[in-house]
Amino acid sequence: MQKNFSEDEFYIDRCLKLAKKGAGFVSPNPLVGSVIVHNGKIIGEGFHEVYGGPHAEVNAIGSVAQPILLQESTLYVNLEPCAHFGKTPPCADLIIRHKIPRVVIGCLDPFEHVSGKGAEKLRHAGVEVKVGVLESEALRLNEAFIHFHIQKRPFVALKFAQTLDGKIATTSGDSKWITNKASRTLGHQLRSWHSAILIGTNTALADDPELTVRHVEGKNPVRVLLDRRLSVPLTAKIFNAAANTLVFTSSQNTNHPKVGKLNEKNVEVFFVTENEAGLSFSEIFQVLYEKKLLSVYVEGGSGVYSRLIQEGYCEKFYGFIAPKIVGGDGLATFRPLEITNMAEAVSLRFHQVQMLDGDIFIEGYFNH
Amino acid sequence: MQKNFSEDEFYIDRCLKLAKKGAGFVSPNPLVGSVIVHNGKIIGEGFHEVYGGPHAEVNAIGSVAQPILLQESTLYVNLEPCAHFGKTPPCADLIIRHKIPRVVIGCLDPFEHVSGKGAEKLRHAGVEVKVGVLESEALRLNEAFIHFHIQKRPFVALKFAQTLDGKIATTSGDSKWITNKASRTLGHQLRSWHSAILIGTNTALADDPELTVRHVEGKNPVRVLLDRRLSVPLTAKIFNAAANTLVFTSSQNTNHPKVGKLNEKNVEVFFVTENEAGLSFSEIFQVLYEKKLLSVYVEGGSGVYSRLIQEGYCEKFYGFIAPKIVGGDGLATFRPLEITNMAEAVSLRFHQVQMLDGDIFIEGYFNH
Repeated sequence: MQKNFSEDEFYIDRCLKLAKKGAGFVSPNPLVGSVIVHNGKIIGEGFHEVYGGPHAEVNAIGSVAQPILLQESTLYVNLEPCAHFGKTPPCADLIIRHKIPRVVIGCLDPFEHVSGKGAEKLRHAGVEVKVGVLESEALRLNEAFIHFHIQKRPFVALKFAQTLDGKIATTSGDSKWITNKASRTLGHQLRSWHSAILIGTNTALADDPELTVRHVEGKNPVRVLLDRRLSVPLTAKIFNAAANTLVFTSSQNTNHPKVGKLNEKNVEVFFVTENEAGLSFSEIFQVLYEKKLLSVYVEGGSGVYSRLIQEGYCEKFYGFIAPKIVGGDGLATFRPLEITNMAEAVSLRFHQVQMLDGDIFIEGYFNH
Repeated sequence: MQKNFSEDEFYIDRCLKLAKKGAGFVSPNPLVGSVIVHNGKIIGEGFHEVYGGPHAEVNAIGSVAQPILLQESTLYVNLEPCAHFGKTPPCADLIIRHKIPRVVIGCLDPFEHVSGKGAEKLRHAGVEVKVGVLESEALRLNEAFIHFHIQKRPFVALKFAQTLDGKIATTSGDSKWITNKASRTLGHQLRSWHSAILIGTNTALADDPELTVRHVEGKNPVRVLLDRRLSVPLTAKIFNAAANTLVFTSSQNTNHPKVGKLNEKNVEVFFVTENEAGLSFSEIFQVLYEKKLLSVYVEGGSGVYSRLIQEGYCEKFYGFIAPKIVGGDGLATFRPLEITNMAEAVSLRFHQVQMLDGDIFIEGYFNH
């Protein structure tokens, strides 16, 4: 869908596209792209490529062949330039030093050390600053980063692959394969774009997934296993050396003999409070927050999905729908939620839907 | 999606668009549109507007201001022109009489009195005939008509409105409303494009639907109720005077006192064989075939859907998906189908998917 963009929107859209190239590599930093335009022509561009590396603005400015032109140019960037010393010096200072007269920003940065300060610093130095161009797209690109800093906990996205009638397995538990290769490939791409990937005991026992990124190139997310009773065997693929793994278990298991063996396999074990429903999500997410894991991609099972929904932790979902029906006796994607009136159903917002080589892929949000 | 059409495809596409305007009015005739092109310019067009009225070719030829130009024109039509005397004289003869030198046809007509004979008659008279332009689109437009004549039974399409997790009601049976107004409006449009609309006893009792076309302009389909025990009350909306209604019941009910009362309300009652699963679909569809009802739009409930699927009668489905989750204890769209292996799931083919004001609408087919 080609939109009718204004000139400023056109270049911010280009920033967003550049920024996306850093997905999976810059976390816990945000995704940022920058474009420098002189007399209607792009003379420089760059993006934040890797965590700890130079920011997008630095790369864009550095790519300009004739720096003298910067004094007559506009710098576009999807996220507010930083005004503080982090791993790199403030981008606002760099822009001022190069006498760039105009800066167009997609959205402000909610991170407390930046939030409005970058734009303010630029304006104070006489730079013309425009904020909020393609703002909703810019906010969406960094939704995990923004949520993490505002809510002080990771952004949680459910991923499920189901039949058209909402089943993740047959009566016998058979689930291989529900969706097609294109869906599974996109599933791996999505894994690589998240900081962590989380499953519960039942999924680990039933499917023994490795939870690494395979069908595409990308970084493995940190694997997170919720295992109340430490019942997943040490031989499970989730404990292999392919990626880092964190296990959350009941605080009653501090002396469990498996703990030492997991540590020997470089698996970190965390002990959290347990109630009737399961392990405390608030404690789990506090640990993940402290580890700067911006986003958590949840791959099941239905028990974990349902508890996360009921406790209000889900922000987003990625649903893969296969052109199949297994009937009412199949295994439902979600557990009983005891909803009596249709008006009280869990409320979602479909963001986009598309065909994926015969499957359907839906990206959407939970309304809170 | 704008496609790169050849010239012939462009005009057949125009025929298909014209033909669609007859939807709901021409059954049991097919949907046909025709365009006449002279030197790259449309000089005439028409479509089959109403059952018993003139065919598309007649309307197109009649619309040409200078009939002399016909001798240098191409006539486009999505379905093969007829060669027999039906309610109107053969269109092939009309084309020959007007000395139209070239005819382009979307697809052949499977109807036994036409099937290939129209094209043959034209060729025999020296007309250049091209068949099979946008053939799959042309076949799809008249899929019900074609299925009806080849299979000798109506084309069956399931319509269901469910939550993302495949539920048509909550634990308490609440189902109003799952989908939004746009979905319900399209649902009524689809009703008007089918010859008959069918429900089972449970849906009639639970929802008391009128099954007429209301939110859009269109013809009411013939209402069909499957009522094994004649348990739907005479006061049900489905028996009102707004449209014709057929009731199918067990052959054990021939002397049931309700039969006479239904007849008094102009409701026809048919007695068919009953087995453990329910009423005989083959007998039901034989009656509908004899009544020239090309297509049957099935609005539930889950029992009717599931039996039709299990007995292989479903050709198509229209699924409306609401952005809601009700959980595993909600009422499933389909009953238990006793499928053990995922590879044995009922196989569908998604044809198209789109957002509908926040809901998702899926049109697809059953693979046999």
